[in-house]
Amino acid sequence: MTTLVDAYPSRITTEPAVIERFEPVIHHPDGTASPGPASHDALVEYERDGYMVMESLFTQSEIDAYLGELAALARDPEVRRRPEAVVEPNSDALRSLFAVHRDNPLFHELSRDPRLVDIARQLLGSDVYVHQSRVNLKPGLTGQPFFWHSDFETWHTEDGMPRMRAVSASVVLTDNTEFNGPLMLIPGSHRWFVSCVGETPERNYEMSLKAQQIGTPDPANLEWLVAQGGIVAPKARRGSVIFFECNTMHASGVNLAPAPRSNAFFVYNSVDNQIGGPFAAPAPRPEYLASRDTITTLR
Amino acid sequence: MTTLVDAYPSRITTEPAVIERFEPVIHHPDGTASPGPASHDALVEYERDGYMVMESLFTQSEIDAYLGELAALARDPEVRRRPEAVVEPNSDALRSLFAVHRDNPLFHELSRDPRLVDIARQLLGSDVYVHQSRVNLKPGLTGQPFFWHSDFETWHTEDGMPRMRAVSASVVLTDNTEFNGPLMLIPGSHRWFVSCVGETPERNYEMSLKAQQIGTPDPANLEWLVAQGGIVAPKARRGSVIFFECNTMHASGVNLAPAPRSNAFFVYNSVDNQIGGPFAAPAPRPEYLASRDTITTLR
Repeated sequence: MTTLVDAYPSRITTEPAVIERFEPVIHHPDGTASPGPASHDALVEYERDGYMVMESLFTQSEIDAYLGELAALARDPEVRRRPEAVVEPNSDALRSLFAVHRDNPLFHELSRDPRLVDIARQLLGSDVYVHQSRVNLKPGLTGQPFFWHSDFETWHTEDGMPRMRAVSASVVLTDNTEFNGPLMLIPGSHRWFVSCVGETPERNYEMSLKAQQIGTPDPANLEWLVAQGGIVAPKARRGSVIFFECNTMHASGVNLAPAPRSNAFFVYNSVDNQIGGPFAAPAPRPEYLASRDTITTLR
Repeated sequence: MTTLVDAYPSRITTEPAVIERFEPVIHHPDGTASPGPASHDALVEYERDGYMVMESLFTQSEIDAYLGELAALARDPEVRRRPEAVVEPNSDALRSLFAVHRDNPLFHELSRDPRLVDIARQLLGSDVYVHQSRVNLKPGLTGQPFFWHSDFETWHTEDGMPRMRAVSASVVLTDNTEFNGPLMLIPGSHRWFVSCVGETPERNYEMSLKAQQIGTPDPANLEWLVAQGGIVAPKARRGSVIFFECNTMHASGVNLAPAPRSNAFFVYNSVDNQIGGPFAAPAPRPEYLASRDTITTLR
């Protein structure tokens, strides 16, 4: 077994730091001319901003089917008791359910849909597999905020993902408005790795999925990122998909609207970027948070 | 001493209810033709929506002076230890400081400024006094959300304000954006009183100023109000003033931007609507939350 160099140390030092990203944003050697369904313009946007919104990738009747499945899962008290379920801190409402690509036939199919997978392959320049999946309901009037964070920081420190060669696809199931706690992103933040302070406690994920504390960026570096790129909250409509780079800093506010704000969320990782042991955590996270099943390589 | 009828019962019954508002929104007998600095159009808006935004009521150098004073208050550890101070639940940062119209010379002057008082008199159709004042800092990256509520519900049950004849003036000190937890309102909600369930605990204000639980509307009636009026978040610029009716349902999200979102907040009550004993609380709240000093009637 080879020992991997920790290219992005975090949760190790006592001072926060910013490290410039080593690898490309679009991993195909042709860069923004990478062949596939995403246009050159979309790829330019993704490379520059760390995200892109693909409108109307799914039909309204497809979205209805996903929402119906989601509602059935949310109603089922058995589902809320599974380890894969996260409930709202202030209520028993289902907030997220992980590993739906593994456990749920409909979301399994969605995770393999060429409309998602072909774009992931185009961006990552290789075959891909699902590192993590979940459905997120952000219940109306109660859905709590999520502070700024880079997903890669957690996947690196806690899951052992070596490099920034993964992309998240958020299939928008309900229109994002300024009132329902939409996804907020800092454009350009994916080019910088904010090394965080603090040590990962044991079974940190049990806390961090409710309210992340360890692995959140320090205020000074966050302010620096916002000063450069600002903040955006794409008003994506249901049926569209937000693709965002694994290291793009993002957050979401409280859902103060009556209806839930929901999405289906798939993280595609390159088969050339498979996870090993955690870089800065006492033990790997469970399979439902960080899949090691890369056998069924997608397409 | 005459016993007042409880026109708006709340925190008494076991079922939530909606009561239609009895009194006018504009109390001057001429209604939207009420004489004063606010235009007829502005009054029409206020009567219909329960709020209005007056742009550029204060100059940028005046706002700089208020912000300077606010920063000095926030820096002072003595201030944070006063009973009038509320700090953020997750940090020691100053969130609000009450009774600034009483304790702080600059904000005392502001509370008596004709640009505020003359509009309050125009809306309330009488002389007015300051029922409550505060400065709100919503610190960047940490400022917590506030759930939907009607201020009148609290002022009625806990302070003994008999009728809906008060108006809040929020002097905007920092631009409101969709990212810094701006004031959100439900237009038209001021026409309905949502009677809440639950009993007011002793010294409820010690909790409720951090995160209100008692006196918040039930989800079904809230959804009904939003279905009728929607949600708005005025993108008011510094120097403008948001006037909103005492019964307008409002909320605010988390401040996910790096800079604070700040305002100076004055509640003007009609001298014909002075507070008595609480309608549904074990004891009146302290003077700094509900002033009984109506001697220095304004103008």
